[in-house]
Amino acid sequence: MSSPLVVMKFGGSSVANADRIRRVARRIARERANGSRLVVVVSAMGDTTDELLALAAAITDDPDPRELDVLLATGEHQSATLVSMALHSIGTPAISLTGPQAGITTDGTYGKARIAGIDPRRVDAELAQGKVVIVAGFQGRSVRRLEHLEDAPGASDVHAAEITTLGRGGSDTTAVALAAQLKADRCQIFTDVKGIYTADPRLVPDARQLPVIGYEEMMELAHQGAQVMNVRAVELGWVNDVVIEVLSSFEDAPGTEIKEDPFVEQRNKVRGLAHDRNVAKVTLVAVPDQPGVARRVFDPLAASGITIDMIVQNVSHGGATDLSFTIPRVELAKAKRILEPLVRELDARELTTDSSVAKVSIVGAGIQNAPGYAARMFGTLADNDINIEMISTSEIRITTIIAEDRVEDAVRALHATFALEVPEAAETAAG
Amino acid sequence: MSSPLVVMKFGGSSVANADRIRRVARRIARERANGSRLVVVVSAMGDTTDELLALAAAITDDPDPRELDVLLATGEHQSATLVSMALHSIGTPAISLTGPQAGITTDGTYGKARIAGIDPRRVDAELAQGKVVIVAGFQGRSVRRLEHLEDAPGASDVHAAEITTLGRGGSDTTAVALAAQLKADRCQIFTDVKGIYTADPRLVPDARQLPVIGYEEMMELAHQGAQVMNVRAVELGWVNDVVIEVLSSFEDAPGTEIKEDPFVEQRNKVRGLAHDRNVAKVTLVAVPDQPGVARRVFDPLAASGITIDMIVQNVSHGGATDLSFTIPRVELAKAKRILEPLVRELDARELTTDSSVAKVSIVGAGIQNAPGYAARMFGTLADNDINIEMISTSEIRITTIIAEDRVEDAVRALHATFALEVPEAAETAAG
Repeated sequence: MSSPLVVMKFGGSSVANADRIRRVARRIARERANGSRLVVVVSAMGDTTDELLALAAAITDDPDPRELDVLLATGEHQSATLVSMALHSIGTPAISLTGPQAGITTDGTYGKARIAGIDPRRVDAELAQGKVVIVAGFQGRSVRRLEHLEDAPGASDVHAAEITTLGRGGSDTTAVALAAQLKADRCQIFTDVKGIYTADPRLVPDARQLPVIGYEEMMELAHQGAQVMNVRAVELGWVNDVVIEVLSSFEDAPGTEIKEDPFVEQRNKVRGLAHDRNVAKVTLVAVPDQPGVARRVFDPLAASGITIDMIVQNVSHGGATDLSFTIPRVELAKAKRILEPLVRELDARELTTDSSVAKVSIVGAGIQNAPGYAARMFGTLADNDINIEMISTSEIRITTIIAEDRVEDAVRALHATFALEVPEAAETAAG
Repeated sequence: MSSPLVVMKFGGSSVANADRIRRVARRIARERANGSRLVVVVSAMGDTTDELLALAAAITDDPDPRELDVLLATGEHQSATLVSMALHSIGTPAISLTGPQAGITTDGTYGKARIAGIDPRRVDAELAQGKVVIVAGFQGRSVRRLEHLEDAPGASDVHAAEITTLGRGGSDTTAVALAAQLKADRCQIFTDVKGIYTADPRLVPDARQLPVIGYEEMMELAHQGAQVMNVRAVELGWVNDVVIEVLSSFEDAPGTEIKEDPFVEQRNKVRGLAHDRNVAKVTLVAVPDQPGVARRVFDPLAASGITIDMIVQNVSHGGATDLSFTIPRVELAKAKRILEPLVRELDARELTTDSSVAKVSIVGAGIQNAPGYAARMFGTLADNDINIEMISTSEIRITTIIAEDRVEDAVRALHATFALEVPEAAETAAG
């Protein structure tokens, strides 16, 4: 039992078709030949999740969240069985487990459940039999009792077990949670890029792969638009001290380690850029500056499941102020339906919206404490004639809203300003 | 709770796409408006099961049966959720349950499990809440303990629960088993034909829909090639005295009732014809007529999962005999690989095979006891110059093997000979 335990996670593009599934199986078999015990988490094949969503949308524009979760979870059941079959066919013992079979329980919130716990007994038992354990990602069993079954004493867990999904990117969370529970030696997230970059390499040719990045920096990058890793998975890794390795499923190359970075204090520097085009800006113009206005705006949006990102309210002039905020672009139509009646009710002048904006952020531990980063960022944008529409900051991040058609220029200019293409001395020591 | 309980089953063609699923939902809602409590069993959409099998075949030509069952079961999970969503969208409360959630347990044989029991508590609880309960057909949870989990006391059912499928046509079995367990007032099997016919109406324009047919007759027809109903489902209905109604999901018309037929003795007549083209004939020519030969032939075939249908061995001449039997045509290549080495070992003259044959059967309770049916059947075939290659009989059936290209002629001629287009007086009383 002293052989190392490795959790490997393969995303949808890594298992998109039979060829890729066979390639993933060979990679797993190679890792196992090194003597590791393996738990493998898989996402649904390619576009399966989108296809299932389209199927539901063809039936109804308001699918029941419980039914939708059962539907979506089948995508990962399918890919897990196929990876297991591919391993059998090359002589590697393997078994697929659904999320519930793997002992993953959640808080029961359909569509965006949080993992409540993992009972690892079945996974342990299968590992002890020498099998590679393939776990369907993105899902778990609800522990919430079904009220109307309370009267049925002894109703088995199976009867009352409800399948719940963890939301987009949830397989990352499954992998990190399993690694934490099983005290895995490594947690590898295989994806279609080689690791975490200083900026999106499709926009910035000079973008450099980072050998290591801190949890907090990674969370900010992910939250601000870097799509490689799920934010909640990084958070879970941070809380449980799981070193997460992001690497390519298509080539053998070192990836990026996400971990507590002991060199943060020495570094104190911009680590990466993130951008996000899925943004719309909403402004309530000349709202009377009275207590309770913000709540009357944001309560109904929250009730409709619309995520508010940046909020900016300027100082009041003549008893009125402009209230601006950003939301995911796909939610704009819904938000307008909710807000338009409020313009009259709140006695605001008008509602304006803009869906041709984007977010550009710089991220680095400690940059807020070090003077000059904000000034250099804003100066670089001004030098390139890029107008800043909104600004927000956190401890380790500065975010600007700019016109979407200037994103590429902005990211390239900022990458050059902060010399992100140059590796640091500390990085070599850390990597 | 005195409202009638109806089990409705919809096959794959009835839920093949979003339009048909919405139509099924409207049909269910109409039935519910009559005041019934409803349990609805669904198959996978259209060709889903075949597509999943093709996906597995693209990975390996020998998929693990356990993994294949998990893969195939997703088809019914999907259709069940979609039917439930469609009901919600027209204001009908509904909930989908997987086989395990519906309390269906099996004997644990992957790929062709038999239902071992049904714990109806969750279904009852959901019905009591006024919901239409949609059950994923074709599947159940294995009750077999997983040996390597025996050491984990208290390992929950969920951990050890293994999904098993019931084999082709298994959703019929799910429906009848639920109807038996829940003591349903009616069990309706909706399909793409209007009911059970005296012969395949695509071959015989005069074929007549039967208002009622006995369990045993239906089993023989199904076993001999009529594909409307699954044989095991009919058997289960017979044992549990469930009246099964076969009817069209596309039009409102009376179907065929499968039930204990009190008029069998009066009728004593051919009730229907069945034919089956999925047949190959295998003959071991001039096998030495010694004890143990048959076992040496059929044991290895059985071990390979090849189903033997008719077996004919003629009287011996000069210490040798010809041993003929039929198998499903798709199994012929596998059977030849097994049997060819046996020809030398058994000192037989040769192995001959013919995959251009078909079965044609007449079925009717009591026909074996009444003289003349066999003679009229063979005479009709002779009059039409159709050669009979093999014959087998049961209590209520006479089956012939003939050339496949004469099936249509044979079925039409036999339909006319036995005047199956003419309704009987007894039928009117029974129907």
